[in-house]
Amino acid sequence: MATPVETDAMRRAVALAARGLGHTSPNPVVGCVVLDADGRVAGEGWHRRAGGPHAEVHALREAGDRARGGTAVVTLEPCDHTGRTGPCSQALIDAGIRRVVHAVADPDPTASGGAGRLRAAGIDVEAGLLAAEAARGNEAWLASVRHRRPFVTWKYAATLDGRSAAADGTSRWITSDAARAEVHRLRAEADAVLVGSGTLRADDPHLAVRGVPGEVTQPLRVVVDTEATVEPGARVLDDAAPTLIAVAEDADAGHLGARALRLPRAATGPGLDIPALLTALHQRDVRSVLLEGGPTLAGAFLAADAVDKVVGYLAPTLLGAGPAALADAGVRTIAQALRLDLAEAVRVGPDLRVTAYPRRPGGPSPAATAEEN
Amino acid sequence: MATPVETDAMRRAVALAARGLGHTSPNPVVGCVVLDADGRVAGEGWHRRAGGPHAEVHALREAGDRARGGTAVVTLEPCDHTGRTGPCSQALIDAGIRRVVHAVADPDPTASGGAGRLRAAGIDVEAGLLAAEAARGNEAWLASVRHRRPFVTWKYAATLDGRSAAADGTSRWITSDAARAEVHRLRAEADAVLVGSGTLRADDPHLAVRGVPGEVTQPLRVVVDTEATVEPGARVLDDAAPTLIAVAEDADAGHLGARALRLPRAATGPGLDIPALLTALHQRDVRSVLLEGGPTLAGAFLAADAVDKVVGYLAPTLLGAGPAALADAGVRTIAQALRLDLAEAVRVGPDLRVTAYPRRPGGPSPAATAEEN
Ligand SMILES: NC(=O)c1ccc[n+]([C@@H]2O[C@H](COP(=O)([O-])OP(=O)(O)OC[C@H]3O[C@@H](n4cnc5c(N)ncnc54)[C@H](OP(=O)(O)O)[C@@H]3O)[C@@H](O)[C@H]2O)c1
Ligand SMILES: NC(=O)c1ccc[n+]([C@@H]2O[C@H](COP(=O)([O-])OP(=O)(O)OC[C@H]3O[C@@H](n4cnc5c(N)ncnc54)[C@H](OP(=O)(O)O)[C@@H]3O)[C@@H](O)[C@H]2O)c1
Repeated sequence: MATPVETDAMRRAVALAARGLGHTSPNPVVGCVVLDADGRVAGEGWHRRAGGPHAEVHALREAGDRARGGTAVVTLEPCDHTGRTGPCSQALIDAGIRRVVHAVADPDPTASGGAGRLRAAGIDVEAGLLAAEAARGNEAWLASVRHRRPFVTWKYAATLDGRSAAADGTSRWITSDAARAEVHRLRAEADAVLVGSGTLRADDPHLAVRGVPGEVTQPLRVVVDTEATVEPGARVLDDAAPTLIAVAEDADAGHLGARALRLPRAATGPGLDIPALLTALHQRDVRSVLLEGGPTLAGAFLAADAVDKVVGYLAPTLLGAGPAALADAGVRTIAQALRLDLAEAVRVGPDLRVTAYPRRPGGPSPAATAEEN
Repeated sequence: MATPVETDAMRRAVALAARGLGHTSPNPVVGCVVLDADGRVAGEGWHRRAGGPHAEVHALREAGDRARGGTAVVTLEPCDHTGRTGPCSQALIDAGIRRVVHAVADPDPTASGGAGRLRAAGIDVEAGLLAAEAARGNEAWLASVRHRRPFVTWKYAATLDGRSAAADGTSRWITSDAARAEVHRLRAEADAVLVGSGTLRADDPHLAVRGVPGEVTQPLRVVVDTEATVEPGARVLDDAAPTLIAVAEDADAGHLGARALRLPRAATGPGLDIPALLTALHQRDVRSVLLEGGPTLAGAFLAADAVDKVVGYLAPTLLGAGPAALADAGVRTIAQALRLDLAEAVRVGPDLRVTAYPRRPGGPSPAATAEEN
């Protein structure tokens, strides 16, 4: 049984892990707190970027000699594989750690086995502490390991009556400054930001992260533009962040050079093949995608069962006319409705942020899985 | 300055007052707690029904001799008018009450002056304790006194993408049992429940209250049906509750008898004149209306600035097609959007209940007014 001090340390480790979001792909985010033999915090660390030291290494360094006889509290099972940084399991053994408490077992076959090596070295290992919280904090990476495609969050902004613009097309600004600032944070935490060619033409969006304090790794900007219609002067083609334009294999996309990502067309219906797009992004180490719309592409993603999380910013506004926030998602009758589980509804300035997870009879959400641990 | 004991008593009085909702029109809801000279609760009461004793009288009766030298804590300024029950101010004086703490001043010219008479009798009177909470609990009655028309709450049910049915028109059930049970409570708290002829034809709704525990005063059922198309067998015409069918002055409505409410047609646009409808209901002692839709009538009410409160039940469901929860409300461009203030977002079973108040530059909401007291 974990002690209250260990539980507090795990809560802290989950918060530390979150600082890595957006910087660690294809690795998970991980946080670690090292307690000395008397249960006092001796060191803290988190995995800061892919290729950098793991969370345990940071925390052990900070703890120094105080790690001897102590406890390492870590959000994910320590790795056992010699990558760029050497196995964490060995580092914990070398530091004289006596007990390891981790939240979530490592599902990655190339990294797991750490708990086994620790036990073999006589270390007391406990798994599952705050597993649900830790899994939610790592939801994108865990799902991407399981499904071998990026975790997709669909973000939208709408009025209380579900509109994303007025009858004449005007929409600036439906949601508040506070909500828009949050969207920049969501972008910063994602590996890629995605829009369709309709949004490109309507809004000429920039899609880069602005105004987020601290170190930002700009996400990959991706536009799904079957016929390569993007204009050379489009803002998304500037140098603020890397960009890929997903186009059909037979599209006339010479002007895009290395930015063209050639993909098969959808087997049925218009546009590109969405699973192929996600596979291509996964191969480029993208583990999380923020799908920013518009309504047509979001509908296609939902119809393809390619949305893992929904974040809606609802403005306390009514329009009664104008385009809907979501277009055709393949639902004809109420029995086919896409059911979600509401996770959270929180005020953001004057607006409401609603977070929900599509219900998948076949595969529970990462957090649901974790609760069974 | 009110004491903590008085504040607790006021909180209790606000809760007691709420028990009267739906039974007291054209009177307000009122709750009262009598504390004895030592500050212990000696009596409680609320206004149970129009024509019955006022809250103070109930509480004084329960307190008996313990009222002498005590404090009456009451949500609304005690009345000073001799109606069916005699002025409460005099009853408090006669009972030997030494101090009166009330939340909201009585805005009704025929009832106010109670505080003055109490002071003249040497009683210590304090106003404004928990005024915002008390005003919110009486929001319908306060607004109806101010605007001389009923307070209108628009209730709707929709998916997260703002639809009230799927593409083929099916909609049973978008929201949960829990949300539907709440709607029956909202009906029970209202004096009248209102739908348009479109909803009548599509759903043949019954509109009576079912499944609400305790004593229920069935609200008046009102259908806005310009051409008197309602069929004799419509469920809304049964004897479960009184019913009015609002029809045009020139409609062929002989079959409706006393149930026909003849009204002028709208000056512009289709249907009946909404201000005339509300005035007619006000004359029939209706102080609160639950507008249950559909989208066309709700849009017309919003366009007429005749909605005072919005209660949306949002199901965590996506449809991507199908009719919108709100139709034309006269908004063409984003600058004309109907802005609300979010008051609350609360989970109801799997759904989300969002409560919001239209922003009125000219006239603040009852709660906003109360906060200035
Ligand atoms: N409220 C919000 O949160 C929000 C967010 C974003 C945008 N918007 C608004 O949405 C409007 C644009 O809407 P939209 O629906 O036209 O834009 P969209 O969803 O961004 O783009 C749709 C286009 O994406 C392309 N596409 C490629 N593969 C596809 C596939 N498999 N399935 C579907 N589409 C695919 C299609 O064109 P090609 O195949 O020809 O490339 C399709 O027409 C703008 O007014 C914008 O302001 C609102
Ligand atoms: N999701 C929800 O919360 C909800 C709630 C209720 C209904 N619904 C659905 O809504 C659908 C019906 O929608 P609807 O829009 O046709 O019905 P509606 O809003 O109930 O009725 C509209 C009709 O009301 C009459 N009306 C009278 N005076 C009016 C005025 N001043 N302004 C506007 N209309 C006036 C008009 O017909 P006449 O003038 O000819 O009488 C008008 O066509 C049904 O499918 C129902 O299930 C959904």
